[in-house]
Amino acid sequence: MTTWLSISANSDFSLYNLPFGIFDSGDGRPRAGIAIGDHIVDLAAAAETGLFGKRRFFKKIFEQPVLNDFIALGKPVTNRVRRKVQEWLCRPETPDNAGNLLADRRTARMHLPVRIGDYTDFYSSIEHATNVGKMFRPDNPLLPNWRWLPVGYHGRSSSIVPSGTPVRRPYGQILPKGQETPVFSASRQLDFELEMAFIIGKDTALGESVRVENAEDYIFGLVLFNDWSARDIQRWEYVPLGPFLGKNFASSVSPWIVPLEALKPFRTKGPKQTPPPFEYLNARGARNYDIALEVAIQAGDAEPAVVCRSNMRHLYWSMAQQLAHHTINGCNIRVGDLMASGTISGPGPGTYGSMLELSWAGQQPIPLADGSSRTFLQDGDTVVMRGWGEKPGMRVGFGEVRGEILPALSSPFLP
Amino acid sequence: MTTWLSISANSDFSLYNLPFGIFDSGDGRPRAGIAIGDHIVDLAAAAETGLFGKRRFFKKIFEQPVLNDFIALGKPVTNRVRRKVQEWLCRPETPDNAGNLLADRRTARMHLPVRIGDYTDFYSSIEHATNVGKMFRPDNPLLPNWRWLPVGYHGRSSSIVPSGTPVRRPYGQILPKGQETPVFSASRQLDFELEMAFIIGKDTALGESVRVENAEDYIFGLVLFNDWSARDIQRWEYVPLGPFLGKNFASSVSPWIVPLEALKPFRTKGPKQTPPPFEYLNARGARNYDIALEVAIQAGDAEPAVVCRSNMRHLYWSMAQQLAHHTINGCNIRVGDLMASGTISGPGPGTYGSMLELSWAGQQPIPLADGSSRTFLQDGDTVVMRGWGEKPGMRVGFGEVRGEILPALSSPFLP
Repeated sequence: MTTWLSISANSDFSLYNLPFGIFDSGDGRPRAGIAIGDHIVDLAAAAETGLFGKRRFFKKIFEQPVLNDFIALGKPVTNRVRRKVQEWLCRPETPDNAGNLLADRRTARMHLPVRIGDYTDFYSSIEHATNVGKMFRPDNPLLPNWRWLPVGYHGRSSSIVPSGTPVRRPYGQILPKGQETPVFSASRQLDFELEMAFIIGKDTALGESVRVENAEDYIFGLVLFNDWSARDIQRWEYVPLGPFLGKNFASSVSPWIVPLEALKPFRTKGPKQTPPPFEYLNARGARNYDIALEVAIQAGDAEPAVVCRSNMRHLYWSMAQQLAHHTINGCNIRVGDLMASGTISGPGPGTYGSMLELSWAGQQPIPLADGSSRTFLQDGDTVVMRGWGEKPGMRVGFGEVRGEILPALSSPFLP
Repeated sequence: MTTWLSISANSDFSLYNLPFGIFDSGDGRPRAGIAIGDHIVDLAAAAETGLFGKRRFFKKIFEQPVLNDFIALGKPVTNRVRRKVQEWLCRPETPDNAGNLLADRRTARMHLPVRIGDYTDFYSSIEHATNVGKMFRPDNPLLPNWRWLPVGYHGRSSSIVPSGTPVRRPYGQILPKGQETPVFSASRQLDFELEMAFIIGKDTALGESVRVENAEDYIFGLVLFNDWSARDIQRWEYVPLGPFLGKNFASSVSPWIVPLEALKPFRTKGPKQTPPPFEYLNARGARNYDIALEVAIQAGDAEPAVVCRSNMRHLYWSMAQQLAHHTINGCNIRVGDLMASGTISGPGPGTYGSMLELSWAGQQPIPLADGSSRTFLQDGDTVVMRGWGEKPGMRVGFGEVRGEILPALSSPFLP
């Protein structure tokens, strides 16, 4: 495939990708687009030219500030729109309307791509669960249920923000080491979690369960996900009902949803599962995805230092299994729901997806590019996560999800 | 106050109440109403007569299938609407338009009153937390954090259903007693949880914290809440990230939101808190509510048997404290969010708000009206919860939240 557009060979946003997002060009008019190289195809403008047929229908859909109604049209329609854009980009000559249909991706402001109904976070990396377990229970790191089901919990959707949104260091209750009564303080153990998340593309009714072999029909696409965590707040609060304020102050997503179809070339088999899963979780075939992941920390204006290189293929429980499990009790899902993987750690120390693991609970500081080091995040640090699939001549990437840590307010209450 | 309408003296929906809901009269046209006695004031029809001024504006607001946009107008407007309806109901003679403005509450179909963004469940009854703790840790029932903060977690909003919706017995993984490997089965320990929930009436921005003394400004009103629970599924899955599939198959709400203002006469002091709470949780004055609660189980067509009588005033942590805690880390809230109390148990065995406690984990069967008994719920059982505040000459009630247990499907997958 060749295009009349100039696209860098190492761009995440190749002709094979064509992810969907919501952007505005500084005019405060959020609308739908497809990323290509350093450009964005303005889908409302493209609809107006009749590229997708039914001009008024598609223009209205693409002028909405979220993709939910578009996604709800179903994969035949969303894939056809990608194909039409791909054909337009691959015309033998530059189309006359190219200027009208393209926006500048480098200067565009990106928004949350969907209105997220419910957000679920899984805990599906065996390396991560084992690492965290070892810090608390050296002899028995994995809890008895872990290999039987994809452990998950509900998170907060209101505080999910798009890449670039700064994150304020939160206040909360913390139990200082060795003490018996908590203190009220800004968090001292602010952390990231390297995750991938998928966006639901099809509703189910209450009482309906998704079969594991059909689960991908319900997955529209994927984003990078940073599940910011305040470890000290989390540690004190989380028994017995799970993480709450240690997580819900913010989570960040990359703005471009890469459709599951664009990731097909990167499908791969997951790890062998022992014990063999129950039938409702028994996903045959290649259900994992070979997506390289990395996390960099940039201290102020210094060069970013990559502190973690991992891969989505390490996940023990696949997205198909997560979704089958989530609905086995009849829990309904809705277009726009977001389900995150949990921290994706790999087998070696340089592959751990959180500072908690990288610094082994603060015992081993991690060196940065400016000569400083970190156990947890400091004010002014920017965390940048990237992810991509790559084969000879084909790159499909997620761009980045980034966020800077702002210092805690002098008091949690605004004046 | 007197009205030209005939209202039974023991009606939950007195002139002092005037709760908001979304109803339709069998015409499939959900719209906003205020309950009064056995009637509903059709607010869109009332708006059309000019009762609230700005006819078209209010008609449009009240024709929506959820109350979110109305609630977002703020308490000065929502309280003014209640006052105008109260004045109309208290006119010296029956208004000519009475027939047009009133619908029959007994035959109306009720819908979810709001589009719920995020749903949070607290764990704020010390009696409930102690009872559940005793079953697992007889010597140390309350966990160390419990008296320091209102423990809470995020739940699933998609599966919150209005009163009357039947609830299907869910499938899931269960670890049989004394065994080491789980089985896949329909739940054998289906339970209710008697809760109250409040609906958020005012947004905050991400990073903003609500002061405990202002928290009530953010609470629009209250509903009854049944947090259906599958105890066996919950027990196996909940470590370490909290309840998930044991809860998210369904939660039921009563359809009429009683505004906080209508509950003012029932404000009361909460229990003494030891240790004294942190300043951000220090709610002075009467922040609890004296609302009588009861749960009845109806086996098939038998007479309902009241199995629990409790009261919302027992809650250790008040709604104001729950909301202050929820936002102390900057977590933002949105109009329509729902925050539930957790099971409200009282001090004696007849006051426990779940079968888990009433039957003491299945050891003490509870007799029903038809001569049968229950440890947990059986197929065909209908659970009915009611709540009301009462003073001489004044009753403000919530009506009921009810749901019938349907048998599990023969397989979790629809054909």
